Amino acid sequence: MRTQVAIVGSGPAGLLLGQLLTEAGIENVILDRVGKEYILGRVRAGVLEEGTVGLMDQAKSGARMHAEGLPHDGFSLAFDGRDHRIDLFGLTGGKRVMVYGQTELTHDLMDHREKSGALTIYDAADVQPHEFDGQLPYVTYDKGGITHRIDCDFIAGCDGFHGASRKAVPERSIRTFEKVYPFGWLGILADVAPVSHELIYANHPRGFALCSMRSQTRSRYYIQCPFDEKIEDWSDDRFWDELRRRLPAHHAEKMITAPPFEKSIAPLRSFVAEPMRFGRLFLVGDAAHIVPPTGAKGLNLAASDVHYLFSGLIEHYQDRSNNGIDAYSDRALSRVWKAVRFSWWMTMMMHRFPDTSDFDQKIQEAELDYLTHSRAAATALAENYVGLPY
Amino acid sequence: MRTQVAIVGSGPAGLLLGQLLTEAGIENVILDRVGKEYILGRVRAGVLEEGTVGLMDQAKSGARMHAEGLPHDGFSLAFDGRDHRIDLFGLTGGKRVMVYGQTELTHDLMDHREKSGALTIYDAADVQPHEFDGQLPYVTYDKGGITHRIDCDFIAGCDGFHGASRKAVPERSIRTFEKVYPFGWLGILADVAPVSHELIYANHPRGFALCSMRSQTRSRYYIQCPFDEKIEDWSDDRFWDELRRRLPAHHAEKMITAPPFEKSIAPLRSFVAEPMRFGRLFLVGDAAHIVPPTGAKGLNLAASDVHYLFSGLIEHYQDRSNNGIDAYSDRALSRVWKAVRFSWWMTMMMHRFPDTSDFDQKIQEAELDYLTHSRAAATALAENYVGLPY
Repeated sequence: MRTQVAIVGSGPAGLLLGQLLTEAGIENVILDRVGKEYILGRVRAGVLEEGTVGLMDQAKSGARMHAEGLPHDGFSLAFDGRDHRIDLFGLTGGKRVMVYGQTELTHDLMDHREKSGALTIYDAADVQPHEFDGQLPYVTYDKGGITHRIDCDFIAGCDGFHGASRKAVPERSIRTFEKVYPFGWLGILADVAPVSHELIYANHPRGFALCSMRSQTRSRYYIQCPFDEKIEDWSDDRFWDELRRRLPAHHAEKMITAPPFEKSIAPLRSFVAEPMRFGRLFLVGDAAHIVPPTGAKGLNLAASDVHYLFSGLIEHYQDRSNNGIDAYSDRALSRVWKAVRFSWWMTMMMHRFPDTSDFDQKIQEAELDYLTHSRAAATALAENYVGLPY
Repeated sequence: MRTQVAIVGSGPAGLLLGQLLTEAGIENVILDRVGKEYILGRVRAGVLEEGTVGLMDQAKSGARMHAEGLPHDGFSLAFDGRDHRIDLFGLTGGKRVMVYGQTELTHDLMDHREKSGALTIYDAADVQPHEFDGQLPYVTYDKGGITHRIDCDFIAGCDGFHGASRKAVPERSIRTFEKVYPFGWLGILADVAPVSHELIYANHPRGFALCSMRSQTRSRYYIQCPFDEKIEDWSDDRFWDELRRRLPAHHAEKMITAPPFEKSIAPLRSFVAEPMRFGRLFLVGDAAHIVPPTGAKGLNLAASDVHYLFSGLIEHYQDRSNNGIDAYSDRALSRVWKAVRFSWWMTMMMHRFPDTSDFDQKIQEAELDYLTHSRAAATALAENYVGLPY
């Protein structure tokens, strides 16, 4: 088989790139080692920057998102028993974010891809990029006991942190940067109305808490916990009690609880691989970088990578220029590092660290105090939260 | 002897408070363990916030500062071989800083104090605050082989980090916070024209450098060095060579050098003692807090303490209200911690740390990149640099 762009990975990055290419008349095939149901079963982020929303529209997949997503004009930083609202809309001159689950977004892109007739190959085992240093790259995979080959012009590695794409690059050609945070997030999904119509990021002496949501009837709540905590030690009641303790009283009092239908602990990590291009192989999204979920940048950063790569491919195919492709890694990484910095900063500011000094704890409190009393500092937070320009 | 306010320490904090009180008709005596020449021989900071300038005027001691000081509308952040100007004036809606040496400011306050006839007792050995928990505090000191006693209403401890005032407080009543940075600043004073008309804060792989000045013919230059470095290992030539290496080429090329007449290594430390009031004893300036010199906050923070304490004393004597005195510690500390945070942040951002990870180094570079490309982030830096409002 031959295509123009082979896309490894059928998560939101691969699907978004695929639909943008399809809409632009560039042939592409998506390969995924797992099946559709598995992909849609993943619980992930749910706060979209305007740039991500724009790309969904550009991919002609944004209709349900606009109908069902919740535009948010601000969020709350809660500490010292009080809410401090960050007025995203007012501080950024009219920008907002869209609360819409990654699972829904993935669903919409899959549906649209099926309608458009573009090919996705699920359950493709042992996907491997080959010869991307030369002019004739190809991808192999196993299915039905047979090894298949797809020849292509370019390979987009959208297969996540554990995917085959980054691993296909020789170690000497890649530099990685990593920070592991000394805690995790214990998260639940429950079909209850959110405690507040906006997100609450809480810094409390007992640890961080986040009240997020997927819809007006589905809440996504998190609490910071030791990273080696066992999920079976957290009964539903213990979770709800602990969450309430970390919120200002006026929120805790009106929290509606119900048995969660999902409960899991996720570690927090920052990771960046440089560069993001290796000849005709491009790393996109989690394949190249991971951010802790504080600030909701992971999915949005994958979307901005897609934007830069799609622009480069369009220049290549329509204008016969490789400038955009050649600039992909630098452009993407410049924005990646800013988002990695923001996610790191927000993580450092909102969590309690097991080994923090009294001085560092006071610095954290001074930062929150300053941030909620300075328009300039709040604007810097807001412009990062809604997403820096592409 | 009896006075209304006994001021321990004849540095800029004590002198400024003394002159404000004298101008307001409140009697005060300043005690210092050393002599005038020793005090004026200290080489210290030289960048004044507008609030500090205003207090000098209020103390009727600002004439020479306005005539000889250099108003600065901006400074340079230098990294990656380039200057990135921080437009203080433009970003803060018209605020600036004043470059004027602490030695000169101290000189002006001493001169004015002498003319006003207010009493300063130099070479007062073993100064000790007493009974400040009760209604009848007093201060003792030794001079001429005799122990003297000054009864007073209040004691202002303006005697610096190593002074007797903080040490007079029982350990159980005070909480301290400290961070020691793993490097020092090697600084020189030389009678050469500054390399640039504005200050240059340089982040370089070899370490931080700062090009500051005292006047248009006197430069104050610093380079980051290991904190256990020996001054005798730094010949003049070695210093100038190292400084030039850390600056963008267009600055290094036009650096004028001369044998420095002062050369010293200072450690970098953050320190805060809480609270800042103990009955009728108030800690002011370095007696209560130390900041690393990055960002030039030390003297300015002493001045803002003086402002809060002076306001409280005026309320006490003129309005018969203790509200201002009772609020002193909280008001001062709120601003102190913001300045401590800013100085810590600027220190973390501008220096190379011996034990930094590759990830942390990239975060530092991303922060500089973001800061010099975001008006909001640059405004937050600028508003702190010119001084947060009292």
